[in-house]
Amino acid sequence: MTDDISGYTFGEESVPVSPIDMPAFNRLKQTVLFTEEDEEHLRMAGEVLDGQIDDVLDTWYEFIADHPHLIQYFSTPEGEPIEEYLDRVRQRFGQWIRDTCNPPYDEEWLNYQQEIALRHTHEKKNETDDVDSVDHIPYRYLSAFIYPITATMKPFLKNGKYSGDAVEKMHSAWFKAVVLQVTLWSEPYVKNGDF
Amino acid sequence: MTDDISGYTFGEESVPVSPIDMPAFNRLKQTVLFTEEDEEHLRMAGEVLDGQIDDVLDTWYEFIADHPHLIQYFSTPEGEPIEEYLDRVRQRFGQWIRDTCNPPYDEEWLNYQQEIALRHTHEKKNETDDVDSVDHIPYRYLSAFIYPITATMKPFLKNGKYSGDAVEKMHSAWFKAVVLQVTLWSEPYVKNGDF
Ligand code: HEM
Ligand code: HEM
Repeated sequence: MTDDISGYTFGEESVPVSPIDMPAFNRLKQTVLFTEEDEEHLRMAGEVLDGQIDDVLDTWYEFIADHPHLIQYFSTPEGEPIEEYLDRVRQRFGQWIRDTCNPPYDEEWLNYQQEIALRHTHEKKNETDDVDSVDHIPYRYLSAFIYPITATMKPFLKNGKYSGDAVEKMHSAWFKAVVLQVTLWSEPYVKNGDF
Repeated sequence: MTDDISGYTFGEESVPVSPIDMPAFNRLKQTVLFTEEDEEHLRMAGEVLDGQIDDVLDTWYEFIADHPHLIQYFSTPEGEPIEEYLDRVRQRFGQWIRDTCNPPYDEEWLNYQQEIALRHTHEKKNETDDVDSVDHIPYRYLSAFIYPITATMKPFLKNGKYSGDAVEKMHSAWFKAVVLQVTLWSEPYVKNGDF
Protein backbone atom coordinates (compact mmCIF):
# COMPACT_ATOMS: atom_id res chain seq x y z
CA MET A 1 0.00 0.00 0.00
CA THR A 2 2.77 2.41 0.90
CA ASP A 3 4.22 1.64 -2.54
CA ASP A 4 1.39 3.71 -3.94
CA ILE A 5 2.41 6.85 -2.05
CA SER A 6 4.34 9.00 -4.43
CA GLY A 7 7.59 10.31 -2.94
CA TYR A 8 7.37 8.23 0.23
CA THR A 9 10.84 6.72 0.51
CA PHE A 10 10.91 5.23 4.03
CA GLY A 11 13.55 2.48 4.15
CA GLU A 12 14.99 3.28 0.73
CA GLU A 13 18.68 3.77 -0.04
CA SER A 14 18.25 7.44 -0.91
CA VAL A 15 17.35 8.26 2.71
CA PRO A 16 20.23 9.90 4.64
CA VAL A 17 21.70 8.44 7.81
CA SER A 18 20.39 10.14 10.94
CA PRO A 19 22.93 12.33 12.74
CA ILE A 20 21.53 10.89 16.00
CA ASP A 21 22.64 7.45 17.13
CA MET A 22 20.57 5.13 19.32
CA PRO A 23 22.13 6.11 22.68
CA ALA A 24 21.49 9.80 21.89
CA PHE A 25 17.96 8.98 20.76
CA ASN A 26 17.38 7.10 24.01
CA ARG A 27 18.45 10.16 26.05
CA LEU A 28 15.99 12.21 24.03
CA LYS A 29 13.21 9.70 24.71
CA GLN A 30 14.00 9.89 28.43
CA THR A 31 13.75 13.67 28.26
CA VAL A 32 10.19 13.47 26.92
CA LEU A 33 9.42 10.58 29.32
CA PHE A 34 8.73 8.27 26.39
CA THR A 35 8.27 4.67 27.56
CA GLU A 36 6.98 1.32 26.32
CA GLU A 37 3.61 2.23 27.75
CA ASP A 38 3.55 5.15 25.31
CA GLU A 39 4.40 2.79 22.47
CA GLU A 40 1.45 0.65 23.50
CA HIS A 41 -0.86 3.67 23.57
CA LEU A 42 0.37 4.87 20.19
CA ARG A 43 -0.54 1.51 18.71
CA MET A 44 -4.00 1.83 20.27
CA ALA A 45 -4.23 5.35 18.81
CA GLY A 46 -3.35 3.88 15.43
CA GLU A 47 -6.39 1.59 15.61
CA VAL A 48 -8.66 4.42 16.66
CA LEU A 49 -7.39 6.75 13.95
CA ASP A 50 -7.59 4.15 11.20
CA GLY A 51 -10.57 5.25 9.12
CA GLN A 52 -10.34 8.84 10.42
CA ILE A 53 -7.05 9.80 8.76
CA ASP A 54 -8.79 11.81 6.05
CA ASP A 55 -10.76 13.76 8.64
CA VAL A 56 -7.60 14.55 10.60
CA LEU A 57 -5.91 15.73 7.41
CA ASP A 58 -8.94 17.87 6.50
CA THR A 59 -8.61 19.62 9.86
CA TRP A 60 -4.89 20.31 9.41
CA TYR A 61 -5.21 21.37 5.78
CA GLU A 62 -8.05 23.76 6.61
CA PHE A 63 -5.90 25.32 9.31
CA ILE A 64 -3.07 25.83 6.81
CA ALA A 65 -5.36 27.10 4.07
CA ASP A 66 -6.88 29.64 6.47
CA HIS A 67 -3.53 31.33 7.10
CA PRO A 68 -1.72 33.14 4.27
CA HIS A 69 1.55 32.92 6.20
CA LEU A 70 1.25 29.10 6.14
CA ILE A 71 -0.34 28.27 2.78
CA GLN A 72 2.46 30.20 1.02
CA TYR A 73 4.74 27.20 1.60
CA PHE A 74 2.47 25.11 -0.62
CA SER A 75 2.23 27.88 -3.20
CA THR A 76 4.20 29.32 -6.09
CA PRO A 77 6.50 32.24 -5.26
CA GLU A 78 3.66 34.39 -6.64
CA GLY A 79 1.26 33.01 -4.04
CA GLU A 80 -0.82 30.56 -6.07
CA PRO A 81 -1.51 27.31 -4.14
CA ILE A 82 -0.26 24.27 -6.06
CA GLU A 83 -3.03 21.67 -5.86
CA GLU A 84 -0.90 18.78 -7.02
CA TYR A 85 1.69 19.56 -4.35
CA LEU A 86 -0.95 19.75 -1.61
CA ASP A 87 -2.43 16.41 -2.74
CA ARG A 88 0.84 14.55 -2.94
CA VAL A 89 2.11 15.76 0.42
CA ARG A 90 -1.27 14.91 1.92
CA GLN A 91 -0.76 11.21 1.09
CA ARG A 92 2.61 11.21 2.82
CA PHE A 93 1.21 13.13 5.76
CA GLY A 94 -1.42 10.40 6.20
CA GLN A 95 1.28 7.75 6.11
CA TRP A 96 3.24 9.75 8.71
CA ILE A 97 0.31 9.47 11.12
CA ARG A 98 0.35 5.68 10.61
CA ASP A 99 4.13 5.51 11.06
CA THR A 100 3.96 7.62 14.22
CA CYS A 101 1.43 5.15 15.59
CA ASN A 102 3.62 2.20 14.71
CA PRO A 103 6.51 2.15 17.21
CA PRO A 104 9.05 1.02 18.31
CA TYR A 105 11.09 3.60 16.43
CA ASP A 106 14.13 1.93 14.90
CA GLU A 107 17.09 3.16 12.87
CA GLU A 108 15.18 3.22 9.61
CA TRP A 109 12.55 5.37 11.26
CA LEU A 110 15.25 7.65 12.67
CA ASN A 111 16.82 8.02 9.23
CA TYR A 112 13.48 8.91 7.69
CA GLN A 113 13.07 11.67 10.28
CA GLN A 114 16.18 13.26 8.83
CA GLU A 115 14.68 12.99 5.34
CA ILE A 116 11.41 14.63 6.50
CA ALA A 117 13.41 17.37 8.22
CA LEU A 118 15.40 18.13 5.06
CA ARG A 119 12.23 18.21 2.96
CA HIS A 120 11.15 21.26 4.98
CA THR A 121 14.42 23.11 4.23
CA HIS A 122 16.38 24.68 1.35
CA GLU A 123 18.16 21.39 0.98
CA LYS A 124 15.26 19.25 -0.25
CA LYS A 125 11.97 21.16 -0.24
CA ASN A 126 10.08 20.89 -3.59
CA GLU A 127 12.44 18.23 -4.97
CA THR A 128 10.32 15.17 -4.21
CA ASP A 129 7.30 16.53 -6.05
CA ASP A 130 9.30 18.55 -8.58
CA VAL A 131 7.35 21.72 -7.86
CA ASP A 132 8.13 25.43 -8.10
CA SER A 133 7.23 26.58 -4.59
CA VAL A 134 8.89 28.70 -1.89
CA ASP A 135 12.07 26.77 -1.13
CA HIS A 136 12.23 26.83 2.69
CA ILE A 137 9.95 26.70 5.74
CA PRO A 138 11.20 28.80 8.68
CA TYR A 139 11.89 26.70 11.75
CA ARG A 140 9.64 28.83 13.94
CA TYR A 141 6.54 27.38 12.27
CA LEU A 142 7.67 23.77 12.61
CA SER A 143 8.16 24.35 16.30
CA ALA A 144 4.88 26.26 16.69
CA PHE A 145 2.95 23.44 14.93
CA ILE A 146 3.59 21.23 17.95
CA TYR A 147 0.54 22.84 19.47
CA PRO A 148 -2.07 22.42 16.69
CA ILE A 149 -0.79 18.99 15.63
CA THR A 150 -1.16 17.81 19.22
CA ALA A 151 -4.35 19.58 20.32
CA THR A 152 -6.44 18.80 17.23
CA MET A 153 -5.86 15.08 17.71
CA LYS A 154 -7.81 14.79 20.95
CA PRO A 155 -11.37 14.70 19.51
CA PHE A 156 -10.36 12.01 17.02
CA LEU A 157 -8.88 9.87 19.79
CA LYS A 158 -12.19 10.17 21.65
CA ASN A 159 -14.07 8.68 18.70
CA GLY A 160 -12.83 5.16 19.38
CA LYS A 161 -13.76 2.40 21.76
CA TYR A 162 -11.59 3.68 24.61
CA SER A 163 -12.63 5.56 27.73
CA GLY A 164 -11.43 8.70 29.55
CA ASP A 165 -8.14 7.58 31.02
CA ALA A 166 -7.04 5.58 27.99
CA VAL A 167 -7.80 8.56 25.75
CA GLU A 168 -5.65 10.79 27.96
CA LYS A 169 -2.80 8.30 27.75
CA MET A 170 -3.09 7.95 23.98
CA HIS A 171 -3.08 11.72 23.71
CA SER A 172 0.00 12.09 25.95
CA ALA A 173 1.81 9.47 23.91
CA TRP A 174 0.91 11.38 20.73
CA PHE A 175 2.12 14.64 22.27
CA LYS A 176 5.46 13.04 23.21
CA ALA A 177 5.85 11.52 19.73
CA VAL A 178 5.24 14.91 18.08
CA VAL A 179 7.73 16.70 20.35
CA LEU A 180 10.25 13.93 19.71
CA GLN A 181 9.93 14.26 15.96
CA VAL A 182 9.92 18.05 15.68
CA THR A 183 12.98 18.00 17.95
CA LEU A 184 14.73 15.63 15.53
CA TRP A 185 13.65 17.81 12.62
CA SER A 186 15.40 20.82 14.12
CA GLU A 187 18.81 19.23 13.42
CA PRO A 188 19.40 20.59 9.90
CA TYR A 189 18.16 24.02 10.99
CA VAL A 190 20.46 24.37 13.99
CA LYS A 191 24.03 25.69 13.74
CA ASN A 192 26.80 23.10 13.70
CA GLY A 193 27.29 21.52 17.06
CA ASP A 194 24.44 23.39 18.76
CA PHE A 195 21.78 20.73 18.22
CA MET B 1 10.11 41.80 44.93
CA THR B 2 11.62 41.01 41.55
CA ASP B 3 14.46 43.37 42.57
CA ASP B 4 15.57 40.65 44.94
CA ILE B 5 16.05 38.09 42.18
CA SER B 6 19.71 38.00 41.38
CA GLY B 7 20.40 38.16 37.65
CA TYR B 8 16.79 38.82 36.66
CA THR B 9 17.09 41.71 34.21
CA PHE B 10 13.63 41.97 32.64
CA GLY B 11 13.12 45.49 31.30
CA GLU B 12 16.72 46.55 31.84
CA GLU B 13 18.92 48.22 29.25
CA SER B 14 21.31 45.29 29.01
CA VAL B 15 18.57 43.12 27.47
CA PRO B 16 18.96 42.69 23.69
CA VAL B 17 16.29 43.71 21.20
CA SER B 18 14.23 40.77 19.99
CA PRO B 19 14.88 39.77 16.37
CA ILE B 20 11.09 39.29 16.07
CA ASP B 21 8.87 42.31 15.56
CA MET B 22 5.22 42.51 16.63
CA PRO B 23 3.69 41.53 13.26
CA ALA B 24 5.93 38.45 13.15
CA PHE B 25 5.09 37.64 16.76
CA ASN B 26 1.39 37.93 15.94
CA ARG B 27 1.75 35.42 13.11
CA LEU B 28 3.46 33.09 15.55
CA LYS B 29 0.62 33.52 18.04
CA GLN B 30 -1.88 32.68 15.31
CA THR B 31 0.07 29.54 14.52
CA VAL B 32 -0.31 28.27 18.09
CA LEU B 33 -3.93 29.55 18.18
CA PHE B 34 -3.06 31.93 21.03
CA THR B 35 -5.97 34.28 21.76
CA GLU B 36 -7.17 36.72 24.42
CA GLU B 37 -9.06 33.86 25.99
CA ASP B 38 -5.72 32.16 26.56
CA GLU B 39 -4.38 35.32 28.17
CA GLU B 40 -7.36 35.28 30.51
CA HIS B 41 -6.72 31.63 31.38
CA LEU B 42 -3.03 32.25 31.97
CA ARG B 43 -3.92 34.97 34.48
CA MET B 44 -6.25 32.50 36.19
CA ALA B 45 -3.43 29.94 36.18
CA GLY B 46 -1.20 32.56 37.80
CA GLU B 47 -3.63 32.84 40.73
CA VAL B 48 -3.86 29.07 41.10
CA LEU B 49 -0.08 28.61 40.94
CA ASP B 50 0.67 31.42 43.39
CA GLY B 51 1.74 29.60 46.54
CA GLN B 52 2.61 26.43 44.61
CA ILE B 53 5.62 27.78 42.69
CA ASP B 54 8.11 26.04 44.97
CA ASP B 55 6.34 22.72 44.51
CA VAL B 56 6.39 23.12 40.74
CA LEU B 57 10.10 23.93 40.85
CA ASP B 58 10.76 20.92 43.09
CA THR B 59 9.15 18.70 40.47
CA TRP B 60 11.22 20.15 37.62
CA TYR B 61 14.47 20.17 39.57
CA GLU B 62 13.98 16.55 40.62
CA PHE B 63 13.45 15.60 37.01
CA ILE B 64 16.71 17.34 36.05
CA ALA B 65 18.65 15.92 39.01
CA ASP B 66 17.50 12.41 38.11
CA HIS B 67 19.10 12.54 34.67
CA PRO B 68 22.89 12.81 34.31
CA HIS B 69 22.48 14.07 30.74
CA LEU B 70 20.49 17.04 32.13
CA ILE B 71 22.12 17.88 35.47
CA GLN B 72 25.48 18.24 33.70
CA TYR B 73 24.37 21.67 32.47
CA PHE B 74 24.19 22.86 36.07
CA SER B 75 27.52 21.22 36.90
CA THR B 76 31.22 21.88 36.56
CA PRO B 77 32.88 20.43 33.46
CA GLU B 78 34.03 17.64 35.82
CA GLY B 79 30.40 16.79 36.65
CA GLU B 80 29.97 18.31 40.11
CA PRO B 81 26.57 20.05 40.50
CA ILE B 82 26.98 23.72 41.46
CA GLU B 83 24.50 24.37 44.27
CA GLU B 84 24.71 28.15 44.10
CA TYR B 85 24.01 28.05 40.36
CA LEU B 86 21.00 25.77 40.85
CA ASP B 87 19.64 28.06 43.57
CA ARG B 88 20.04 31.30 41.70
CA VAL B 89 18.52 29.99 38.48
CA ARG B 90 15.67 28.54 40.53
CA GLN B 91 14.63 32.04 41.65
CA ARG B 92 14.52 33.25 38.06
CA PHE B 93 12.70 30.12 36.96
CA GLY B 94 10.00 30.88 39.54
CA GLN B 95 9.72 34.43 38.25
CA TRP B 96 9.42 33.06 34.73
CA ILE B 97 6.33 31.10 35.75
CA ARG B 98 4.83 34.35 37.07
CA ASP B 99 5.78 36.26 33.93
CA THR B 100 4.32 33.55 31.70
CA CYS B 101 1.07 33.89 33.63
CA ASN B 102 1.07 37.65 33.25
CA PRO B 103 0.16 38.44 29.62
CA PRO B 104 -0.32 40.34 27.35
CA TYR B 105 3.19 39.80 26.07
CA ASP B 106 4.68 43.14 25.02
CA GLU B 107 7.97 44.21 23.49
CA GLU B 108 9.85 44.13 26.79
CA TRP B 109 8.66 40.59 27.29
CA LEU B 110 9.72 39.71 23.74
CA ASN B 111 13.17 41.19 24.34
CA TYR B 112 13.59 39.21 27.53
CA GLN B 113 12.82 36.01 25.62
CA GLN B 114 15.90 36.71 23.55
CA GLU B 115 17.92 37.17 26.73
CA ILE B 116 16.63 33.87 28.16
CA ALA B 117 17.43 32.15 24.86
CA LEU B 118 21.00 33.45 24.87
CA ARG B 119 21.51 32.39 28.47
CA HIS B 120 21.08 28.78 27.31
CA THR B 121 23.80 29.13 24.65
CA HIS B 122 27.57 29.69 24.23
CA GLU B 123 26.84 33.36 24.02
CA LYS B 124 25.65 33.99 27.59
CA LYS B 125 25.42 30.77 29.59
CA ASN B 126 27.18 31.01 32.99
CA GLU B 127 27.78 34.77 32.70
CA THR B 128 24.86 35.96 34.81
CA ASP B 129 25.88 33.85 37.79
CA ASP B 130 29.61 33.93 37.06
CA VAL B 131 29.93 30.16 37.27
CA ASP B 132 32.27 27.62 35.74
CA SER B 133 29.78 25.21 34.14
CA VAL B 134 29.36 23.55 30.75
CA ASP B 135 28.97 26.52 28.40
CA HIS B 136 26.09 25.46 26.14
CA ILE B 137 22.80 23.53 26.26
CA PRO B 138 22.04 21.61 23.04
CA TYR B 139 18.83 22.78 21.39
CA ARG B 140 17.39 19.27 21.33
CA TYR B 141 16.80 19.36 25.09
CA LEU B 142 15.11 22.76 25.07
CA SER B 143 12.71 21.47 22.45
CA ALA B 144 12.18 18.15 24.25
CA PHE B 145 11.40 19.97 27.53
CA ILE B 146 8.17 21.23 25.99
CA TYR B 147 6.68 17.93 27.06
CA PRO B 148 7.67 17.75 30.76
CA ILE B 149 7.22 21.51 31.35
CA THR B 150 3.68 21.22 29.97
CA ALA B 151 2.56 17.87 31.34
CA THR B 152 3.79 18.33 34.91
CA MET B 153 1.76 21.53 35.26
CA LYS B 154 -1.63 19.84 35.06
CA PRO B 155 -1.87 18.52 38.66
CA PHE B 156 -0.92 21.95 40.04
CA LEU B 157 -3.61 23.63 37.96
CA LYS B 158 -6.14 21.17 39.40
CA ASN B 159 -5.28 22.28 42.96
CA GLY B 160 -7.13 25.59 42.64
CA LYS B 161 -10.74 26.68 42.84
CA TYR B 162 -11.50 25.90 39.19
CA SER B 163 -13.36 22.94 37.70
CA GLY B 164 -12.74 20.48 34.86
CA ASP B 165 -13.26 22.62 31.78
CA ALA B 166 -11.48 25.69 33.19
CA VAL B 167 -8.51 23.53 34.18
CA GLU B 168 -8.33 22.16 30.63
CA LYS B 169 -8.37 25.68 29.25
CA MET B 170 -5.70 26.92 31.67
CA HIS B 171 -3.59 23.92 30.71
CA SER B 172 -4.01 24.54 26.97
CA ALA B 173 -3.08 28.18 27.45
CA TRP B 174 0.04 27.10 29.37
CA PHE B 175 0.91 24.60 26.64
CA LYS B 176 0.62 27.32 23.97
CA ALA B 177 2.71 29.75 26.04
CA VAL B 178 5.48 27.17 26.46
CA VAL B 179 5.54 26.31 22.74
CA LEU B 180 5.57 30.02 21.92
CA GLN B 181 8.56 30.68 24.17
CA VAL B 182 10.66 27.67 23.24
CA THR B 183 10.01 28.61 19.61
CA LEU B 184 11.34 32.13 20.26
CA TRP B 185 14.32 30.65 22.11
CA SER B 186 15.31 28.65 19.02
CA GLU B 187 16.30 31.86 17.23
CA PRO B 188 19.96 32.09 18.34
CA TYR B 189 20.39 28.36 17.69
CA VAL B 190 19.08 28.37 14.14
CA LYS B 191 21.23 29.17 11.10
CA ASN B 192 21.00 32.67 9.70
CA GLY B 193 17.73 33.24 7.92
CA ASP B 194 16.32 29.80 8.67
CA PHE B 195 14.41 30.75 11.81
C1 HEM C 1 4.52 19.56 13.78
C2 HEM C 1 4.91 20.09 12.63
C3 HEM C 1 4.83 19.41 11.29
C4 HEM C 1 4.58 18.10 10.98
C5 HEM C 1 4.24 16.97 11.92
C6 HEM C 1 4.72 17.97 9.54
C7 HEM C 1 4.60 16.78 8.84
C8 HEM C 1 4.97 16.63 7.52
C9 HEM C 1 5.10 15.38 6.84
C10 HEM C 1 4.84 14.03 7.47
C11 HEM C 1 5.50 15.63 5.56
C12 HEM C 1 5.75 14.63 4.44
C13 HEM C 1 7.05 13.89 4.69
C14 HEM C 1 7.38 12.97 3.52
O1 HEM C 1 7.68 13.50 2.42
O2 HEM C 1 7.28 11.74 3.70
C15 HEM C 1 5.61 17.06 5.44
C16 HEM C 1 5.98 17.74 4.31
C17 HEM C 1 5.71 19.08 4.13
N1 HEM C 1 5.31 19.97 5.10
FE1 HEM C 1 5.27 19.59 7.07
N2 HEM C 1 5.00 19.19 9.01
C18 HEM C 1 5.04 20.09 10.04
C19 HEM C 1 5.25 21.45 9.89
C20 HEM C 1 5.03 22.12 8.71
C21 HEM C 1 4.79 23.53 8.57
C22 HEM C 1 4.74 24.56 9.70
C23 HEM C 1 4.62 23.77 7.25
C24 HEM C 1 4.31 25.10 6.62
C25 HEM C 1 3.11 25.41 6.24
C26 HEM C 1 4.75 22.50 6.56
C27 HEM C 1 4.68 22.32 5.19
C28 HEM C 1 5.10 21.18 4.53
C29 HEM C 1 5.40 21.11 3.12
C30 HEM C 1 5.32 22.24 2.11
C31 HEM C 1 5.80 19.78 2.87
C32 HEM C 1 6.29 19.21 1.56
C33 HEM C 1 7.81 19.30 1.54
C34 HEM C 1 8.43 18.79 0.24
O3 HEM C 1 8.54 19.60 -0.71
O4 HEM C 1 8.81 17.60 0.18
N3 HEM C 1 5.00 21.52 7.48
N4 HEM C 1 5.30 17.65 6.65
C1 HEM D 1 10.91 24.27 28.08
C2 HEM D 1 12.22 24.36 28.26
C3 HEM D 1 12.89 25.26 29.27
C4 HEM D 1 12.39 26.29 30.02
C5 HEM D 1 10.95 26.78 30.07
C6 HEM D 1 13.48 26.87 30.73
C7 HEM D 1 13.39 27.99 31.56
C8 HEM D 1 14.48 28.68 32.05
C9 HEM D 1 14.44 29.96 32.70
C10 HEM D 1 13.16 30.75 32.93
C11 HEM D 1 15.70 30.31 33.02
C12 HEM D 1 16.15 31.60 33.72
C13 HEM D 1 16.06 32.77 32.80
C14 HEM D 1 16.62 34.03 33.46
O1 HEM D 1 17.86 34.06 33.66
O2 HEM D 1 15.82 34.94 33.78
C15 HEM D 1 16.56 29.25 32.58
C16 HEM D 1 17.92 29.21 32.73
C17 HEM D 1 18.63 28.03 32.65
N1 HEM D 1 18.17 26.83 32.16
FE1 HEM D 1 16.45 26.57 31.24
N2 HEM D 1 14.62 26.17 30.45
C18 HEM D 1 14.30 25.17 29.59
C19 HEM D 1 15.18 24.20 29.14
C20 HEM D 1 16.35 23.90 29.78
C21 HEM D 1 17.10 22.68 29.64
C22 HEM D 1 16.71 21.50 28.75
C23 HEM D 1 18.18 22.78 30.43
C24 HEM D 1 19.24 21.73 30.63
C25 HEM D 1 19.23 20.99 31.69
C26 HEM D 1 18.13 24.08 31.07
C27 HEM D 1 19.07 24.57 31.94
C28 HEM D 1 19.16 25.91 32.31
C29 HEM D 1 20.34 26.52 32.88
C30 HEM D 1 21.66 25.86 33.19
C31 HEM D 1 20.00 27.87 33.08
C32 HEM D 1 20.91 28.98 33.60
C33 HEM D 1 21.54 29.68 32.40
C34 HEM D 1 22.51 30.77 32.78
O3 HEM D 1 23.70 30.44 33.00
O4 HEM D 1 22.08 31.94 32.87
N3 HEM D 1 17.00 24.73 30.65
N4 HEM D 1 15.79 28.26 31.99
